[in-house]
This record gives sequence, C-alpha cells and structure tokens, in this order.
Amino acid sequence: MTTLADLPLRDDLRGRTPYGAPQAAVGVPLNVNENSFGIPDVVRDDIAASLARVVSGVNRYPDREFTSLRHALASYLGHGLRADQLWAANGSNEVLQQVLQAFGGPGRTVLGFSPTYSMYPLLSSGVGSTWIAGERDEAFELGAETARRQVEQYQPDVVILCTPNNPTGTDIGLDVVEAVYEAANGIVIVDEAYQEFSDRESALTLLPGRERLFVSRTMSKAFAFAGVRVGYLAADPVAIDALRLVRLPYHLSALTQAAAEAALRHSEVMLANVAAIAAQRDRISSRLVELGYAPYRSAANFVLFGGVADPAGTFSRLLERDILIRDVGLPGHLRVTAGTEPETTAFLTALAEIGNDA
Amino acid sequence: MTTLADLPLRDDLRGRTPYGAPQAAVGVPLNVNENSFGIPDVVRDDIAASLARVVSGVNRYPDREFTSLRHALASYLGHGLRADQLWAANGSNEVLQQVLQAFGGPGRTVLGFSPTYSMYPLLSSGVGSTWIAGERDEAFELGAETARRQVEQYQPDVVILCTPNNPTGTDIGLDVVEAVYEAANGIVIVDEAYQEFSDRESALTLLPGRERLFVSRTMSKAFAFAGVRVGYLAADPVAIDALRLVRLPYHLSALTQAAAEAALRHSEVMLANVAAIAAQRDRISSRLVELGYAPYRSAANFVLFGGVADPAGTFSRLLERDILIRDVGLPGHLRVTAGTEPETTAFLTALAEIGNDA
Repeated sequence: MTTLADLPLRDDLRGRTPYGAPQAAVGVPLNVNENSFGIPDVVRDDIAASLARVVSGVNRYPDREFTSLRHALASYLGHGLRADQLWAANGSNEVLQQVLQAFGGPGRTVLGFSPTYSMYPLLSSGVGSTWIAGERDEAFELGAETARRQVEQYQPDVVILCTPNNPTGTDIGLDVVEAVYEAANGIVIVDEAYQEFSDRESALTLLPGRERLFVSRTMSKAFAFAGVRVGYLAADPVAIDALRLVRLPYHLSALTQAAAEAALRHSEVMLANVAAIAAQRDRISSRLVELGYAPYRSAANFVLFGGVADPAGTFSRLLERDILIRDVGLPGHLRVTAGTEPETTAFLTALAEIGNDA
Repeated sequence: MTTLADLPLRDDLRGRTPYGAPQAAVGVPLNVNENSFGIPDVVRDDIAASLARVVSGVNRYPDREFTSLRHALASYLGHGLRADQLWAANGSNEVLQQVLQAFGGPGRTVLGFSPTYSMYPLLSSGVGSTWIAGERDEAFELGAETARRQVEQYQPDVVILCTPNNPTGTDIGLDVVEAVYEAANGIVIVDEAYQEFSDRESALTLLPGRERLFVSRTMSKAFAFAGVRVGYLAADPVAIDALRLVRLPYHLSALTQAAAEAALRHSEVMLANVAAIAAQRDRISSRLVELGYAPYRSAANFVLFGGVADPAGTFSRLLERDILIRDVGLPGHLRVTAGTEPETTAFLTALAEIGNDA
C-alpha cells in the first residue's frame, strides 16, 4: 500500500496535515467567522440574473484584467482610490499568496505576530519563504514599539499585520502600521479581512506615498460572500503591476467577476447586518465574563476566550448540541463567531448549561 | 515617480513581463484556442438555474472537498476512476501549480520539452523550481528514446509531457509516457488539455500502479468552458492527498462547483462540436500547404505553421481584417485556432489575400 511518505513530496511538507476547519453540517455553525445572515432576496435575484447573462459567453476566456470589477471595488472602498490601485483574486488567501510570490519567495522571510491567521505560515512556506512568528503585547494587543522592535530585529522581507487579528479579535491603530512601515525595508501587508466590524480607521488612508504598503480585504466576512471567493487589495499601481508577474492568467472566472460586481451594486444592503453582528459579538463578550471566562477585546465578528478548563470537552459538548465553534489550538482557549441573535443565544445558553469543569 | 525596479521584488522576477495574449475585441478571435461554439441554450439554462440555486447560500464557505464535482468528473472521465482519484482547481494552471508546489518547490527541477506551453517555466519559477527546456525530435515530435534520454540525463523532480502539445499540436504515444515514467524517480505530469481533439489513447489508462503519475485536463478547450476556469486531474488517491497540503482552503467557489457540475450533466452536448473543430483544423493544415506554408501535424484544436516570411507583418495584416491569431515567439511561425467553419474561412481567405512576402 502506497502512502504519502513513498511519494517524492517536498521535504518541508512531510508530516504536515492540511488546513482543515471541520465542515460538519450543524444547525449553528459558528466556527469559520462567516456572516450568518444570508444574501437578501433582492441581491440574490440580481446576482442570479447577472450570472445568467454571462453563462452563454463562457466558451471565451474572462477579462484577464477584470477591469469592471476593479472599478467597482475602487468605488466601494472610496478613499479616492482608482481602479489601477485595486487587485482581486479567489479569496484573500490567493491575494496574499500572490503578494508573497512577488515579494517573498525562496530564501526570504515573512514576519507576523502570533497568534495570528493560521494560513500565513502555510502561505509563506508554500512560496519557499521562512515564517517568523513575532510576539504580541499583553492580552494579544500589539503596540507600535513592540512591532517596530521586531521589524528592526528580524529585517523581514514581508510583514503581515492582521487587524482586527484572527484569532484574537484585537485590532491596531494606524500608528502601529506607520511605525512598521518606517522600520521595514520590505513589503508591509495590512490584512483587514474583518475591518468592517472595527471602529478604527482603515490603513487605506495611509496608502498615498507608501509604495510598499498593501491593504487587503475580503468579501467573505462582513460582505457575506464566502462562497464566491473574492479577496482584494489596494496598493500603489506599481505594486499592483508586480502581481501581474505571478498571478495565473485569467485567475478570476467570468462568474466570479459578474457575481462580485452585482453584489457590490448592493453594498449597503449586503453590509446592513454588520452592526447587528457587532452587537452580538459584544453580547458574547459580556456574557462570557459573567460565566467566568476571559474573553479578549474583539473588533471582529468573533470572540476568543480563555479560561476554558477543557477546550476539547467544551467543543464536543457544544457539538452534541448542534453548535460548532473553533478550537484554534491555544491551550485553554476557544473561539466563537458572532451569529444571528438566535444562534448567539443558542451558543450562550448551551455554554452555561455545559459548565466549565475540567 | 516610483517604478517596479524601486520595489523589493523577488530577484528572479526583475525585468520579466507578464503572460499576456492580447485580449482585443475582434470579430474572429483565433488566438487562445478557445472553443468558438458557444454554450448551447439548453445547457446555458441548466447552468443558470443551478447557479441561481446556490446564490442564496454563498454567505457560507463552499464545500472545501468539492465532493459532488469530483464524483461528476470521475463519471465523465470513465476508465474506472473513483472520486478520490480526482482533483480540480481554477483552471489547469492552478492544478499544475499545486502539483509543482507539492512535488517541486525551491531547489527542485522541472523538465519539459520545448517548445511547449509557455506557462510551465513561469509556474516552475513561481514555486522556486528550475525549469529545464528539453529538446524534441524533428518536426516537434517527441519519441520515447529522446524523452527517456533527457530524463536520465537531468534526473528532474517533475517531468511535464504536454500532449497534444501546445503550441506545436503534436501528440505522443503511451510508449513515451511509459518510458518517461520508468526513467523518472520524480513526478510525471501528462497535460492532456487538448486530449479530446486527439485520436490517441489517454494516459488515464496508465494510472493503475503508477502513483507518481498525474494526468491533467481542462474544461476550457473542447468543453467550451474557458470563462468558468475549471482544470482537473486524475491520479492515485495518495498523490491527491499531497495536493491538500498546498491548495488554498476553499479554492473552488460554490459558483464554479455548481456551474461545472451542470455542464458535466450535458457533456455529450458540450462536446458535440469536437469533430467539427477537428475537421476545420485539418482543413487549415491542408490549405496552409497549398498556400506554401509548413504546418505541423496537429492533434489539437489549433495549427502551428512555419514558413512565414514576416510573422509580425502577417499577424498585423490579419488583425487589420479583424482576425486575431497568435505569434508564439518561434521565428518564422504563427499559430491559429480552428474556429467555426465561417471563422476558419475568414482566416484562410485573408491569409491568401495577404500573401507571404517579407
């Protein structure tokens, strides 16, 4: 019987296991920070009609430059951005992979601040770069001096700042981005996948005059578009040019382009539930304190909490009750997505019932 | 003014230009080997209905394992293949990139036989591997001994056999694949993007007992689905497992999965024009000889022809007549896609009018 060990796999992949949040069919899925509010009917109909219009032409390759979508994204983001400052790919993972392919690559280093998004080390090693797990301040916060010190220490080729940070929920001020940019000689990526849930100003405001700065976003979270796979970023047009050297030709399908443009036409409707989700997030945090847990400050659509006596046990007992949350691998911690009001109630009620015994 | 040279681009990307077939809006586009026959109405309607059904749920991530699509692809390919032997991604470029990420990577080598698909060197350097441009026999054919000799000489980590080969059109017998597999210690990829246009047997028949063999396909060519971006491959289930280590999570959108499954339900209709296209290809070859050009044997949906006195001039004069073909960078050569009967007539008539003067 052949096993993976018998195949000529790349050495650094040996023994690794795939990224894998469980995809269980449960009643209350609060594990991957999706937007529990579905697509409103009026938007769904416009997307479906837009898709129907492009299907008859899919024997041809799509617009490789997705020009129309880039205009729509620039208009959505505002901040005076132009279409030639926008870029998109199949999810923000692919956007980040392209930046790392262009500016990382074999023999280079990528610095992030742990705990942070678990895909960063995988994306880094995928392009042959070395991932450096930097440190955070108390309570998973990240201040300008802590970040600057490590950038000066490691001199990384790429720095990734995730804000609000997954899985901790903590966000950073623009002073941190400025300090890191000043200290770094390489590329600085600010991953704002959860930005819409935060009250802080976006790093988009810092783009003018900073050609090494990339600000990435996703339509998967606040925009409720995880199934369509659209990540995007804004940067200097020259930096965007670099991505053309590494992207796969025609990487965005005609369907993806049409669906994203249709959704962006309805951005106000699509984002209407952001405040409701943030309210459920704050409710979770308050109630977790009452239940004796130690939640971290969150500016995202999820809450990381410590003080869990038996994370695996709590995870399983919630799953028995048809509620799926996330064990992110931090001892004594679990992470839960803020869902609809009923979903959040289901989680909090079940957690109270289960108790916190080891 | 900042230029790309001012940014900390990866050294081996400096001075490179992006992959870029022109995307001009022309009446007769015969440059990127698309299927000129559009999507039949009955299929278009089923695809549109399938897409409409999934849109309301795209706030959730798609099935990361695209299980249903893999079953559909296995059933379409036949040869006794099971779903766990199938894999798919956003175009065959991404499929190949994933194989190279898993089995190539920094410090490894990839051997192909030039001239061949221009993305192979780019995909190789994208993962930090070194591309080795092997040689072909007379008239761009590739025999078993020629291939085996170079595999033994270079001991590559990955060999890519493109058959029918782009841009030459020549295909290879299974004896070549067998010889290369025997001689190689690494992975062997047979890229059958144009297989449906060839009369030769598929390398799928060689899969049993060959765990290092990957056979890749695309829905972009014969299947008339270039705009949806679906490439796929068949291999040993253990080899498929390796791809899970490098694929980006949720890389195939819910829309892509739904559209591809719908199209596969109509595979006979979708492939109905393959014989018509092959007939136009053979018509092109015959007529090119009459016009004094030197076409190569083609088993694909395009024809490469030499004996062009002024390729850039002929290209331009065709474009003036609203006909776009491809200058693939081989001195004295041009490549043309076999289109519908009227498109092919337009090309051949224009070429005869233009003449072949330097």
